[in-house]
Amino acid sequence: MNDQADTPQTPEAEIAALRSNPQPTLRAVAPGMEAHLYTPQPVLDHGFVRVVDYMGDDAAIVQAARVSYGAGTKKARDDSGLIRYLMRHWHSTPFEMCEIKLHVKLPVFVARQWIRHRTANVNEYSARYSVLDREFYIPAPEQLAAQSRVNNQGRGETLQGAEAERVLRLLKEDSMRAYDHYEEMLSQDGQQGLARELARMNLPANVYTQWYWKVDLHNLFHFLRLRADAHAQYEIRVYADAICEMVKDWVPAAYAAFEDYRMGAVQLSARGVDCLKRRLAGETVTQENSGMSKGEWREFEAVWG
Amino acid sequence: MNDQADTPQTPEAEIAALRSNPQPTLRAVAPGMEAHLYTPQPVLDHGFVRVVDYMGDDAAIVQAARVSYGAGTKKARDDSGLIRYLMRHWHSTPFEMCEIKLHVKLPVFVARQWIRHRTANVNEYSARYSVLDREFYIPAPEQLAAQSRVNNQGRGETLQGAEAERVLRLLKEDSMRAYDHYEEMLSQDGQQGLARELARMNLPANVYTQWYWKVDLHNLFHFLRLRADAHAQYEIRVYADAICEMVKDWVPAAYAAFEDYRMGAVQLSARGVDCLKRRLAGETVTQENSGMSKGEWREFEAVWG
Amino acid sequence: MNDQADTPQTPEAEIAALRSNPQPTLRAVAPGMEAHLYTPQPVLDHGFVRVVDYMGDDAAIVQAARVSYGAGTKKARDDSGLIRYLMRHWHSTPFEMCEIKLHVKLPVFVARQWIRHRTANVNEYSARYSVLDREFYIPAPEQLAAQSRVNNQGRGETLQGAEAERVLRLLKEDSMRAYDHYEEMLSQDGQQGLARELARMNLPANVYTQWYWKVDLHNLFHFLRLRADAHAQYEIRVYADAICEMVKDWVPAAYAAFEDYRMGAVQLSARGVDCLKRRLAGETVTQENSGMSKGEWREFEAVWG
Amino acid sequence: MNDQADTPQTPEAEIAALRSNPQPTLRAVAPGMEAHLYTPQPVLDHGFVRVVDYMGDDAAIVQAARVSYGAGTKKARDDSGLIRYLMRHWHSTPFEMCEIKLHVKLPVFVARQWIRHRTANVNEYSARYSVLDREFYIPAPEQLAAQSRVNNQGRGETLQGAEAERVLRLLKEDSMRAYDHYEEMLSQDGQQGLARELARMNLPANVYTQWYWKVDLHNLFHFLRLRADAHAQYEIRVYADAICEMVKDWVPAAYAAFEDYRMGAVQLSARGVDCLKRRLAGETVTQENSGMSKGEWREFEAVWG
Repeated sequence: MNDQADTPQTPEAEIAALRSNPQPTLRAVAPGMEAHLYTPQPVLDHGFVRVVDYMGDDAAIVQAARVSYGAGTKKARDDSGLIRYLMRHWHSTPFEMCEIKLHVKLPVFVARQWIRHRTANVNEYSARYSVLDREFYIPAPEQLAAQSRVNNQGRGETLQGAEAERVLRLLKEDSMRAYDHYEEMLSQDGQQGLARELARMNLPANVYTQWYWKVDLHNLFHFLRLRADAHAQYEIRVYADAICEMVKDWVPAAYAAFEDYRMGAVQLSARGVDCLKRRLAGETVTQENSGMSKGEWREFEAVWG
Repeated sequence: MNDQADTPQTPEAEIAALRSNPQPTLRAVAPGMEAHLYTPQPVLDHGFVRVVDYMGDDAAIVQAARVSYGAGTKKARDDSGLIRYLMRHWHSTPFEMCEIKLHVKLPVFVARQWIRHRTANVNEYSARYSVLDREFYIPAPEQLAAQSRVNNQGRGETLQGAEAERVLRLLKEDSMRAYDHYEEMLSQDGQQGLARELARMNLPANVYTQWYWKVDLHNLFHFLRLRADAHAQYEIRVYADAICEMVKDWVPAAYAAFEDYRMGAVQLSARGVDCLKRRLAGETVTQENSGMSKGEWREFEAVWG
Repeated sequence: MNDQADTPQTPEAEIAALRSNPQPTLRAVAPGMEAHLYTPQPVLDHGFVRVVDYMGDDAAIVQAARVSYGAGTKKARDDSGLIRYLMRHWHSTPFEMCEIKLHVKLPVFVARQWIRHRTANVNEYSARYSVLDREFYIPAPEQLAAQSRVNNQGRGETLQGAEAERVLRLLKEDSMRAYDHYEEMLSQDGQQGLARELARMNLPANVYTQWYWKVDLHNLFHFLRLRADAHAQYEIRVYADAICEMVKDWVPAAYAAFEDYRMGAVQLSARGVDCLKRRLAGETVTQENSGMSKGEWREFEAVWG
Repeated sequence: MNDQADTPQTPEAEIAALRSNPQPTLRAVAPGMEAHLYTPQPVLDHGFVRVVDYMGDDAAIVQAARVSYGAGTKKARDDSGLIRYLMRHWHSTPFEMCEIKLHVKLPVFVARQWIRHRTANVNEYSARYSVLDREFYIPAPEQLAAQSRVNNQGRGETLQGAEAERVLRLLKEDSMRAYDHYEEMLSQDGQQGLARELARMNLPANVYTQWYWKVDLHNLFHFLRLRADAHAQYEIRVYADAICEMVKDWVPAAYAAFEDYRMGAVQLSARGVDCLKRRLAGETVTQENSGMSKGEWREFEAVWG
């Protein structure tokens, strides 16, 4: 855009001004979600998640399913039972009929993981167009974890003492120095000033960015299953956890089904089914006679003992 | 699903019951769209389009763009100007921040064209699960067009007299007979009754189906540009036209920009640009010296004379 | 398009002419797939599936995963083990690195189910532009099933005797009559001739259409899991089964992993895990003390007894 | 993955070893593309683009279109004419029938722009799992541009003298220091060593990453139109330019149509069409009587004078 910046109102102020008064609507309203609207939920040291808008509720899922199944759908089956049925049988389209729009502030390295979920709409703050703020994620001491010795993409024990101090110092100093230099390069005070689209390359991946992220409930559940999982990196998991709390209040029946059939569920391979059946029949099954590799067997035992 | 059907409430009755009373919301409300909610807009002889839900308004587009561009966005540029700028420069993501959910009743051959737009969510009435109604599209006499002699996928003049009568009679008789046989095959009266998932194959493509269709505004504009176009088949164009009227009331600024930059726009190829520049310079340009094929030139002349 | 048709070469002849001679390539070649290329695999009474092109092989999956995991990937883990690991942990992107292009001829009611898988590329024969052939799916007698009494979207026993004969007669007669009238309406012999885009609406859903369908291996596996499943409608399942045979020869390691972790796998809900653990501990679990609904319990028992 | 790294073969060596010998195939072969296969095309100071695989050629586009249009497609229309027709009329599905797989090494800030194109498949090198190399993008002196004074997201003149030197020094020093600290934090020499998924956050956005990127030709053209455009940031444009050269050799007819109808094309709004028609009729049109804003008029004049 070709305009000079003047005194802008922040998006936050704008939202507050525009949306402070309830207005009547004929659309589906989810009371539990209204309570979340526009209230930033703090995440990490400078981040947040905030619901900007939503479409639909538990009843909207049921209503869409009834269009699909027409008069054949038994009214006596309560909505919650139908939602559980749909979730159990991977009938995903009725869940796509709900939509959520979030405003998220998050470190760039988290944003890079997040954006891999392609079935969402995104408007990100442009560091090509605007100047980023001096805000960097610095892990809390209890999150400063060593590399796992057994898992190439996991964390081990928490760093202690001098090592922990050194890491925190390096992260803080490098962040501040990088930002100082970013400002120096941008400055038009006595010099031309480097283009913003170039200067940004000096900022490390713990700098915060923000975006609007809009996604349907089916794809959100997929995101949450992967990112609220114990194997997800802590720094994205806390965002997923915060969103889970919102979804629980938005579509309680769908969320309960999601917990039972996705978050708490276990996938058994054909070999795994065979092993369990043999166990139920009283046989002693070991890795050697399971047909599984050591890795698979370790994962199998983690659930079934 | 494994349930017996009993006396269901129609989706229509359900919507009416659930949503007859306005409720307060903190979300963006588009007054022009509230007026459309739940009111079926008749299309063709038995079809309709009805807005079931929507998310966002013109201000939501601006708000998303301002997250992208941050403090750099001049407040003095009014919202409409920013929306025009975004549309002109193909910045599509802010338009993706609005969403609409429609309930549509439409002939199957129209549904088959419509579904080719893949970036939408759909719940269609299942003829595998339920029984379709005895409703078929029969063209109005003025829509009974001959095959175009010049365009392999277009219509020519309206059929007249005996030919028109014969066509209408065949369409009506075949529809009714197909439905009679559909019912006969399904009947469990004195016989087993054919599976619904098989019996449906006897129904012609003018039978009506219905679905919930949910799409973001950017993809909806793409749909409308193609389907509200003069070259689209009449039977889908009338749906697109009905939706245009709704969108105009929902996001008036975005719709105005869409009309100027998409519906009324003309794409010029590099060769076309060259020809126009030569004309502006006073040269007489013909197909022979244009570098265009006969087909291209015909399309060029249709716009520029 | 604005051209008159003249004597066209069929796509089949064209393919045969263009591709009859092997040519050297530096790309990944899957010998098992080369054997399938261009050979139509018959499905149903007039349909087929034919591989037109493919990209990648088992090694391409591994190679893509190794870019993901970089130098950390142990060479000693054999390719098949890595592929099993990726499949088990839902790492889908390496599977997206393989692609297949199929030419499929199929009844319209099957095409309508198939097209719901949106993550594919499709070029369908246009009945707006061209005239469809006189080919209709008529079920084999052993596929003429009654409506299931327990499952709203399933089949029961095979129809017998007079009922079966009557159904077959109706399907055949209605198909032929609809096609006769289609031709009559289109005819320009002594009349104008109805536009093709209108005449097609008279054809029933068992008429054959054809398309090119291109999809990546991850999305193909998703399609096959749903459509090669015992609950899928027979008429689409036979296509999925034919494709399974091709995929098995194309990417044998990936297909074996797919069979173990998807086709033969069982998903257990949190409640289901709890019930199995109680059983393994020697407890007698019944529907009443399982926490499951009757429907869920029925499905649970079907697997675990 | 739970394995220890041992001496891996680089992906490069692996490809070379596996693919050094041509093998016979029955698939479509594009000779112009075979010449590009596996040869990294250098981009920026440490980046590259390399074709790993491709599917289809110009003839494959035509073939798919002929399935759509069936016998109606005139053989006499040559392939190039049909491809031009398809491109001109936005018939995108035949172009989706070609696919390309690239291996790209690129700075993270370029990757962040690139990934916004969602309709592609991606496998990125994981800095959670592996250690990134000490490679950073440092702009060539002639690319060290000042912020544009007229365009918030553009570049102005090249920085000179002391300012240029200072910027280059800061970028180099900060990169090297950040990497030194990255290594220090990771080190397990006398300390536990920070988890890789945390240490990476210290690396600035000019560090190089790499990925496999697979996309169909239609979506690739969309990417190229935006990213090979004069308004795209230089650092992504050079990748787009390199890919253009490959596509030109792969599908020469499609690429020529793309140049004429997309890259060299001009979109005129309804107002723009009106202004040009008035000019052609001899009228003098100014911004004041054009109906356009100043910004629009500036863009209009840039093309039409």
